[in-house]
Amino acid sequence: MQDIIENIVSTVGASQQRGQVADYIPQLGRVDINHFAISVATCDGQLFSGGDAQTPFSIQSISKVFTLTQALGKLGDGLWRHVGREPSGDPFNSIVQLEHEQGKPRNPFINAGAIAVADALLSGCQPKEMLAELLRFVRNLANDDSVFIDEAVAKSELATGDRNASLAHFMAGFRHLRHPVDSVLGAYFHQCAIAMTTQQLAQAGLFLAGDGLNPITQSRVVPSRRARRINSLMMMCGHYDGSGEFAYRVGLPGKSGVGGGILAIAPGKASIAVWSPGLDPIGNSKLGTEALEALMQRTGWSVFV
Amino acid sequence: MQDIIENIVSTVGASQQRGQVADYIPQLGRVDINHFAISVATCDGQLFSGGDAQTPFSIQSISKVFTLTQALGKLGDGLWRHVGREPSGDPFNSIVQLEHEQGKPRNPFINAGAIAVADALLSGCQPKEMLAELLRFVRNLANDDSVFIDEAVAKSELATGDRNASLAHFMAGFRHLRHPVDSVLGAYFHQCAIAMTTQQLAQAGLFLAGDGLNPITQSRVVPSRRARRINSLMMMCGHYDGSGEFAYRVGLPGKSGVGGGILAIAPGKASIAVWSPGLDPIGNSKLGTEALEALMQRTGWSVFV
Amino acid sequence: MQDIIENIVSTVGASQQRGQVADYIPQLGRVDINHFAISVATCDGQLFSGGDAQTPFSIQSISKVFTLTQALGKLGDGLWRHVGREPSGDPFNSIVQLEHEQGKPRNPFINAGAIAVADALLSGCQPKEMLAELLRFVRNLANDDSVFIDEAVAKSELATGDRNASLAHFMAGFRHLRHPVDSVLGAYFHQCAIAMTTQQLAQAGLFLAGDGLNPITQSRVVPSRRARRINSLMMMCGHYDGSGEFAYRVGLPGKSGVGGGILAIAPGKASIAVWSPGLDPIGNSKLGTEALEALMQRTGWSVFV
Amino acid sequence: MQDIIENIVSTVGASQQRGQVADYIPQLGRVDINHFAISVATCDGQLFSGGDAQTPFSIQSISKVFTLTQALGKLGDGLWRHVGREPSGDPFNSIVQLEHEQGKPRNPFINAGAIAVADALLSGCQPKEMLAELLRFVRNLANDDSVFIDEAVAKSELATGDRNASLAHFMAGFRHLRHPVDSVLGAYFHQCAIAMTTQQLAQAGLFLAGDGLNPITQSRVVPSRRARRINSLMMMCGHYDGSGEFAYRVGLPGKSGVGGGILAIAPGKASIAVWSPGLDPIGNSKLGTEALEALMQRTGWSVFV
Repeated sequence: MQDIIENIVSTVGASQQRGQVADYIPQLGRVDINHFAISVATCDGQLFSGGDAQTPFSIQSISKVFTLTQALGKLGDGLWRHVGREPSGDPFNSIVQLEHEQGKPRNPFINAGAIAVADALLSGCQPKEMLAELLRFVRNLANDDSVFIDEAVAKSELATGDRNASLAHFMAGFRHLRHPVDSVLGAYFHQCAIAMTTQQLAQAGLFLAGDGLNPITQSRVVPSRRARRINSLMMMCGHYDGSGEFAYRVGLPGKSGVGGGILAIAPGKASIAVWSPGLDPIGNSKLGTEALEALMQRTGWSVFV
Repeated sequence: MQDIIENIVSTVGASQQRGQVADYIPQLGRVDINHFAISVATCDGQLFSGGDAQTPFSIQSISKVFTLTQALGKLGDGLWRHVGREPSGDPFNSIVQLEHEQGKPRNPFINAGAIAVADALLSGCQPKEMLAELLRFVRNLANDDSVFIDEAVAKSELATGDRNASLAHFMAGFRHLRHPVDSVLGAYFHQCAIAMTTQQLAQAGLFLAGDGLNPITQSRVVPSRRARRINSLMMMCGHYDGSGEFAYRVGLPGKSGVGGGILAIAPGKASIAVWSPGLDPIGNSKLGTEALEALMQRTGWSVFV
Repeated sequence: MQDIIENIVSTVGASQQRGQVADYIPQLGRVDINHFAISVATCDGQLFSGGDAQTPFSIQSISKVFTLTQALGKLGDGLWRHVGREPSGDPFNSIVQLEHEQGKPRNPFINAGAIAVADALLSGCQPKEMLAELLRFVRNLANDDSVFIDEAVAKSELATGDRNASLAHFMAGFRHLRHPVDSVLGAYFHQCAIAMTTQQLAQAGLFLAGDGLNPITQSRVVPSRRARRINSLMMMCGHYDGSGEFAYRVGLPGKSGVGGGILAIAPGKASIAVWSPGLDPIGNSKLGTEALEALMQRTGWSVFV
Repeated sequence: MQDIIENIVSTVGASQQRGQVADYIPQLGRVDINHFAISVATCDGQLFSGGDAQTPFSIQSISKVFTLTQALGKLGDGLWRHVGREPSGDPFNSIVQLEHEQGKPRNPFINAGAIAVADALLSGCQPKEMLAELLRFVRNLANDDSVFIDEAVAKSELATGDRNASLAHFMAGFRHLRHPVDSVLGAYFHQCAIAMTTQQLAQAGLFLAGDGLNPITQSRVVPSRRARRINSLMMMCGHYDGSGEFAYRVGLPGKSGVGGGILAIAPGKASIAVWSPGLDPIGNSKLGTEALEALMQRTGWSVFV
């Protein structure tokens, strides 16, 4: 495995065609496009890494996996009153679907859906408490207390988050949010600003490879059935309107973020995190996807075999 | 396994809430809603069945799996110039997406996409030859020469197929079809009229459970990589805008037809065919889905574990 | 008036930027882009013309004014069960709106709406009879029996009319057509192939300038109220998604055709026909619109004064 | 004329089927549905009124006519870089069109368009100054200094204006607003809260009936050409996706507001204001429209004659 990873770092990681760094969030626009990292945490307790695997990056939308997990714990199936679970066929920040379906987002991984999930998590607590609990949860999963929220990124999102503000106000107009728009957006922008290394992220995803059980500590994070369902949502909706392409090429449940990270789950085998800041036109990490494709070809870990 | 199947037949198969039989194709509207069948063909060569597993039914859109397989064999990746591979987020017969994307269908499993695939299969042959070859291919896969095309159903579709004619003409208007609309529709309506039993259908799908290899005859139907890709397309797009729901509940690649059949693939384990003519509001077999859900809960065959 | 017209012919008519001739109907694509004609028939019985005012051209969608007039005579307000009367905000051949509103076209001047009107006119008669009656009606209005249907153009449309066939089948799929799609399309393509000169067309429109009364013969064509309503529909929907622009620049009810003709009505004053085959990107005659704009500036005939 | 008006008050104004008062703005929801008023200011200087013509009501979207007039004075044709001039075919608060056309509203009379106009008016001044100037302009037009901004209504809109906030943030996300969203919305909500009587409103609209010239004071408000263009926009877009219906039934340029008011212009003849708080399903005053229809039938003032 270490050989495979090093080979990927020296080939895929050295590619000249690295995509474009997201620049609509100024803080993200400053990240060096040459970063590249990959970490594989296996269900039998090993951790393999290559590249900048100890450099924290902004996980952005990958955080939606963790808030979804928390919200399902808090509300159970009641969550599905607030958000659907179908692929949207639209870009991550599209509002067209919201109008056609009267303010109910299609799934928890498009921005509108994640905002609805954040709203659900705010029930009975203040934004600060909700964020503290989220951070505690992610640190626990990663087994590493150095995971942090990058305030500079959070502020940068707040300052330029008009599209998300539009989505939130739109849902509020349909009475689909129960907390003030500003609170929900504040929570959402901070969750997106969680910074992690690929090592931390790969470990944090292990419970999804372990059918809900952390295979190392043997502690149960979520019931088996819920783990499968989260995986299914990652498969169907984890890459916006590039989800079909990712399933076709990689064949694993995965969730991308505009920071250039991707978390992919090989059920029963491993949790994989990659990072390369340059994005493809749809907004998914270009080299990150290629790295996962290469990894899958050499390991045969596709769920479709 | 036989116990599980018989239990499913006596519980799910006996449910009072059976959905609605599709009535827009008159011949389908006449089918008895009380039919129920399930067959499981395992990779180690066993075949288990329950219910009306020897009664042929109209496989309808499940035929799209077979034409896609043939078209990929004929055109390779060239097929993707004609059709995409993203979930559509729209009903099976929607035309809105076609206009927004200038006549190129989102994926091969919505009607427009399957019509484009039929058009591709017509290259260099007449509709009759293309259908003969398709039938030969499916009979081979099912290892059963009694698979047939139900002419009464094909005629019934021709007579009421305005929505599909609209899709075909729309694509033709964008020069996305290379054969006369009437020929393409004739081929398409006949492929949908293939009649099979669940026993035949389960066996015909085995090569997708066997990574492209028929696990019984050990003959290779498609390369390994192509089998995985077809499975990924079935997972992402096989149930129209209910694909997310099916992945969430069943966790297997699957393709449904309005005749009430579903073909599901448990990679490395089995190919499963179910049939119950009553549909849910989205157009997928209501009890068929429930039967697969029950089977998965008892076997743990979800790809997400 | 003759001075104004000659000035327009020598300035606007000589412009180098003439737009693009519609080429999706082969026969139309062959028309010389340098044609230019304008005719003004006034309510006090005078007829002024300039340019190629005696050369017949394909009136195409302008025919929708005449079929709408006939259909309102035949069905009265019952026609509005088949077609709406709102601007569509979409291109002339868009199908998106049809799906959102379940097969009912927005207005009688987009293609789908005109097809629905043709279907209504077929009640109780064969396509040939319907076309004969339409031709009789237009000849009568134009007071000229040389108006004819150009069979070569009609055939050319039939051969390339996939987009319209798509619209017709789509409506048929929603049971919004009561006659066979082929009959309706045959009638529609023939009505679009009516050939007239601007002299004939200006005279044929006079009843709409005369509040339903032909001001020369003093014979009543339609009741006063219906004439106003047809004018309102021409104003609101006569130029597809360029209707707002035409109202803004010209300020008169008008109907354009892809043959490059426009019929405009100055209520109480005159009926005006222009022809220049080059179209703007929306599909309306480029120089035709400019000629009408120039005419309005010099006559002050806008309805908004 | 006074007879006609009194007859309308006693028939239309007494109707039992009065529509629904808009309740999404709480302050508007409290208005008595039984109010009914009509005022006609003629170009020869007379003023006829009936019903509650001296009771101020919230003009809401009718204010868009006045801000458009001001913005055209300030920016000239430069305004059309910020907003289009086509009917939208969508409800007043739809966001779908905005996404399809990348943040540029279709016309100045849908909410998004009016927000863009308010943004344009904020150039070089503070919201307070912009509102003071607007109020001065409307008082001048109405020749009555008692026109005021109802702060309770403005606050009520601010508190419930999520849908408009969504539109504004959406445009800001496309960099189509040049001022802070909160400032623009503050200005917009206050302009909508202008309160006027039908007497004041009819007089304020007279310059549009007088081709830009106030026919009583003979002072020029806008150039002739601009008056015609504003009238054309009112005709094409003044009643949202009920504009076609209004043109068909009334035949005059008009602008409605959810407060139940309508301003209609009979060019060369009169400016008419009606008020009845109950709305039809599209959001236009039900009895207000009927009153105008009755008035037009008796006066023959349609522009289509």
